[in-house]
Amino acid sequence: MEDKVYIPINKQLPSLYDPVEYILGLPSKKFRPSLCHLTATILKEVNADTETLGRALEVFHNFTLMHDDVMDNAPLRRGQATVHKKWSVSQAILSGDVMLIKAYEQLGNIKDATKSQIALKWFNKIAIEVCEGQQLDMDFEQKTAVNETEYLEMIRLKTAVLIGLSMVFGAISVGVEKNALTEIYKIGEQIGLLFQLQDDYLDVYGSPENFGKQVGGDIIEGKKTFAYLKAVQLSKTPELLQKVYLDKSIKNTDKIKAVRDLFDKTSLKEHLEADMQKHYDFIVKNIKNSILKGKATPLLSLLEKMYLRVH
Amino acid sequence: MEDKVYIPINKQLPSLYDPVEYILGLPSKKFRPSLCHLTATILKEVNADTETLGRALEVFHNFTLMHDDVMDNAPLRRGQATVHKKWSVSQAILSGDVMLIKAYEQLGNIKDATKSQIALKWFNKIAIEVCEGQQLDMDFEQKTAVNETEYLEMIRLKTAVLIGLSMVFGAISVGVEKNALTEIYKIGEQIGLLFQLQDDYLDVYGSPENFGKQVGGDIIEGKKTFAYLKAVQLSKTPELLQKVYLDKSIKNTDKIKAVRDLFDKTSLKEHLEADMQKHYDFIVKNIKNSILKGKATPLLSLLEKMYLRVH
Repeated sequence: MEDKVYIPINKQLPSLYDPVEYILGLPSKKFRPSLCHLTATILKEVNADTETLGRALEVFHNFTLMHDDVMDNAPLRRGQATVHKKWSVSQAILSGDVMLIKAYEQLGNIKDATKSQIALKWFNKIAIEVCEGQQLDMDFEQKTAVNETEYLEMIRLKTAVLIGLSMVFGAISVGVEKNALTEIYKIGEQIGLLFQLQDDYLDVYGSPENFGKQVGGDIIEGKKTFAYLKAVQLSKTPELLQKVYLDKSIKNTDKIKAVRDLFDKTSLKEHLEADMQKHYDFIVKNIKNSILKGKATPLLSLLEKMYLRVH
Repeated sequence: MEDKVYIPINKQLPSLYDPVEYILGLPSKKFRPSLCHLTATILKEVNADTETLGRALEVFHNFTLMHDDVMDNAPLRRGQATVHKKWSVSQAILSGDVMLIKAYEQLGNIKDATKSQIALKWFNKIAIEVCEGQQLDMDFEQKTAVNETEYLEMIRLKTAVLIGLSMVFGAISVGVEKNALTEIYKIGEQIGLLFQLQDDYLDVYGSPENFGKQVGGDIIEGKKTFAYLKAVQLSKTPELLQKVYLDKSIKNTDKIKAVRDLFDKTSLKEHLEADMQKHYDFIVKNIKNSILKGKATPLLSLLEKMYLRVH
């Protein structure tokens, strides 16, 4: 052993970092960094910290995808092989871990220590909630009865809180006062909830054009979505609906058709549309009463674009 | 849907948090928080931040154990069932994730923003290195030839850097100037390396009393330890040694005896003891030339206790 004790060797570690580059390289809307950017623009001017925090959001989001795909045993992600299928479960675990840390690394790169710490505290809170949401989602898989409130809490945690954080990060990046952040967060969280409700709706009533992914995927999997839970609640034959929806032996196209027929008997479409409309109006009202008012046009345009997905 | 949109439900999530409490409740020496505490004491007086950063170290360390055990498919941890065996792989992934975030949560609890950010930056760097170390360890499993330098780099990353961080966190907690931290870090890293080398040695030449775990465990598993790599290098019959060491079909007690006999033919014991002695002297010399000098008695006592493990 040398006196020096340690000599660094080549630290290129493709086995660790290839999966990271792979998942970050898959086509993605980059919705979270965009929303961070948009919020910063509305409030002031974007700066280097906006980009930094946007990167943290995207890397974190992809970390959750990589680990969730292992837990859900999903073969595909954005139409490509998932990391645990292309490499291994161990690889998906460890490369995911390093991505979570890399997200935090971005927070450390914020020059102003106070700003960095505000971002850190928000990030910790939300990241924990995202894990809790994934846990609830897995717990629901094992349960036969899940009610609407429980479902909303699950998607709030699993999906919406990170959308809320995306807006908060935009605001933090331009130095918005700490006390104003919760108001901004709540708007983002509501947008996240609406987005997920729309996804659940489009899985039943969408077209490949406005949905961007395979219509009926949730039905095939028998996933307990908001649409399904609502339909069970409205249905006069809930047992039959449950039986068909959770049956994995029926041919995909037959199952989608059978489930849709049962859904249609409940006027589910109208109920979901009324829910989304109510939710949409609520968000617009909140934006117009918030710190964002007066400058909110780009955010309202985004909402309108979301609205058009389902109309 | 209510205007309120979201109503929190009971957030008790035993499925997520039981494994966290379980692993943190297993008997442990709490070496990292102790070293953090010890360093703070040497430099100044411990304070609430010392405890906070000590907790971050312990929670992070246990996160790595939970995930490593999945990757290594280990059935036991500290003599008890591992989380993925007692619960499931999904549970070990998600509960591990939440622990990593909980470690960062501690950093956010440091009141002084500058101190919190210094801790964050150090933590990010080290946490990434720990993942890289685990990756190298897994890569080595697949390789037949690993040299001494590669092995030292692997244990530096997988084990020693976190021991270095434990001392740094102690120093940060009492407000030691940023520029002095690297010197302190290096001493900790060297202590971490020595500790691992001793573990490798004790697996061959220890007794259950001074080792604290099953002697010969690495031999049974055919783990490429420093002792093994050194023995292959010294041996006149390296192929035979490799063959026996990597053979998983030999009965445990027979294998331990056969490997030890082959080791003894190489005067491995003397070589390892000389290596450890050299390393030990190097650390003591560095402590005596560092910011810790004059107040280093408790640290030197700790080293002496480590020394006595192998004598």
